[in-house]
Amino acid sequence: PVDALAELSAEIFATDSTNALQYSITEGYIPLRRDVVARLKNKFDIEADVDNTIIVSGGQQAIELACKVLCNEGDTVICEDPTFIGGLNAFRSLGANVVGLPLDIDDAHAEEALDRLVADNPSAKMIYLIPTFQNPAGITSSLEKRRALYRAAARLGIMIFEDNPYGELRFAGEEVPTIKSFDAEGVVIYASTFSKILSSGMRVGYVTAPKEVISKMVVAKQSEDVHTNIFFQMLCHKFIEKYDLDAHIEMIRALYRDKCALMLRTLDEYMPSEVKYTRPEGGLFLWATLPDRVNEKEFVKKAIERKVAVVPGETFNCDVNAISHSFRLNYSTPSDEDIVKGCRILGELAREMLA
Amino acid sequence: PVDALAELSAEIFATDSTNALQYSITEGYIPLRRDVVARLKNKFDIEADVDNTIIVSGGQQAIELACKVLCNEGDTVICEDPTFIGGLNAFRSLGANVVGLPLDIDDAHAEEALDRLVADNPSAKMIYLIPTFQNPAGITSSLEKRRALYRAAARLGIMIFEDNPYGELRFAGEEVPTIKSFDAEGVVIYASTFSKILSSGMRVGYVTAPKEVISKMVVAKQSEDVHTNIFFQMLCHKFIEKYDLDAHIEMIRALYRDKCALMLRTLDEYMPSEVKYTRPEGGLFLWATLPDRVNEKEFVKKAIERKVAVVPGETFNCDVNAISHSFRLNYSTPSDEDIVKGCRILGELAREMLA
Repeated sequence: PVDALAELSAEIFATDSTNALQYSITEGYIPLRRDVVARLKNKFDIEADVDNTIIVSGGQQAIELACKVLCNEGDTVICEDPTFIGGLNAFRSLGANVVGLPLDIDDAHAEEALDRLVADNPSAKMIYLIPTFQNPAGITSSLEKRRALYRAAARLGIMIFEDNPYGELRFAGEEVPTIKSFDAEGVVIYASTFSKILSSGMRVGYVTAPKEVISKMVVAKQSEDVHTNIFFQMLCHKFIEKYDLDAHIEMIRALYRDKCALMLRTLDEYMPSEVKYTRPEGGLFLWATLPDRVNEKEFVKKAIERKVAVVPGETFNCDVNAISHSFRLNYSTPSDEDIVKGCRILGELAREMLA
Repeated sequence: PVDALAELSAEIFATDSTNALQYSITEGYIPLRRDVVARLKNKFDIEADVDNTIIVSGGQQAIELACKVLCNEGDTVICEDPTFIGGLNAFRSLGANVVGLPLDIDDAHAEEALDRLVADNPSAKMIYLIPTFQNPAGITSSLEKRRALYRAAARLGIMIFEDNPYGELRFAGEEVPTIKSFDAEGVVIYASTFSKILSSGMRVGYVTAPKEVISKMVVAKQSEDVHTNIFFQMLCHKFIEKYDLDAHIEMIRALYRDKCALMLRTLDEYMPSEVKYTRPEGGLFLWATLPDRVNEKEFVKKAIERKVAVVPGETFNCDVNAISHSFRLNYSTPSDEDIVKGCRILGELAREMLA
């Protein structure tokens, strides 16, 4: 919403420039933290409060801070496998050991699988999950799986990091409760961002967590960047206060609904049936899997030669040596025309390589 | 320069909003990196280039990234003692061991002192220095000391982190060459910021370092915040391009020159002669030292009771258990009236406690 942001920026410069350009507190702009707390309650049934909710420099910083606070070098972070590359990089950059829990494990076996992983990795300190419209796979964990993993984490005394950057981008199907909404034990760190609903370039995200954890995250954040750009924190708050963020999100949702449907229709038409892909109910990504006999690296390379960029599945693997037969597609950025053109080229390529 | 920033912000929204609000590259906005490279050459005789110069989220992030890249848990960072609390916290938050090199060591003994520290701490990986208008002491290291420490670092194979946030705030005396300007061996990481010359709340700083180091800092930065707020990177560039940053800095310098002189005059008048203080030639801080027989903690506490806040010296100690007889004064923020009032109160308090 460029015009609204331009208008509100001018207002900040005119009326509150000193606060907007001076040092501010590490925890973040209090009015924006109040907005976040209210939204968490309204949208996700999460009981947060301003004291245990802070503004961070994008959701990425929340992930990195949580790992920094919970893990010493050599401690283990358990991740869905595959998972978000930014999470993996943060954990690796802090010297944490990354262990994968298969994303497609069925609901009934999730709890015992986590038990086994923790038994094998007694230094496990954190489980990193993107339960809703997962990156890269675009799928959403069932409530049963969420409860199972939560139960295990609470019992085993390890924290869950629930990363929910895409949670407001549902365009089909039914809401599934966030893990944080039933966190009676206080073992869930919950993070999200304005990147996917307002602007990614401004780097404004937020995280809510039990007091003992959030207070240590504040200390760690202070030594990373002192605080998040305060002007844009104020701008987010003003936008929420004066404009209708929900209406803006509804517009984005409609856009992504159409783009996702277009991508699925085109894939349905051109992709050979042996290539499988997810049918997301929201978010930004679709995850396609080639038959085992097709070399995925070669597929991705050839696609790029034909000017279609997809992200190879290896990127998202917890084990850097594991192979992948999958690749990630994004439907939010390309034009409708490019979606059709790109999927057609991918379909043809798959056909050739399967022949 | 609020009016200029307001005008340029409107321009960015009107002409380049997509780039200003979308994801950007971790290394930072190329036109701003070009500006930084040109300034480093013009102002500090530093030969940087765009490829080994990146934008960070304030100078603080440069310090933290350097330590993250150079040190494993338990490795040692050598710091001037006392030093900047933000540096100490960054090193501690990454599990580094902090060892102090006395700030007031004389030039002739600096090299052997560093040799001895490294012999005692073979895991030393980095020396953190603020050679110009040091925080907290406000003093500037001589060229002889800079050369001595550089020689030792190059010989011992450890990196120097030269932090220069106040370097453009000289209002008296002669420029001393930056260590980076004679870094023929490529052992110096040099960082600075727009916080002290344009706006601190926007969190825009920069760092230049040898290629192998900067490329690892980019990886580490990516997993901290992906990139620095891109709108304000563009805003800094536009300000440099369209306005006269040097004229703006000259205005700030004149202001701080007057404020520092006023603080010194008032202290000279009211402070008992047994209390010693530095006479800075630039920067923001003045460092006062009480006679040993005065309890500094009590002094600071009583000053606060009389509504004068000074920062106790312990805060800046490398050894958290060491005592201090000093405190830091800031002349850039308070009004002229408050400077006079505050220094008078501190003088009276010192007189009482010495009596």
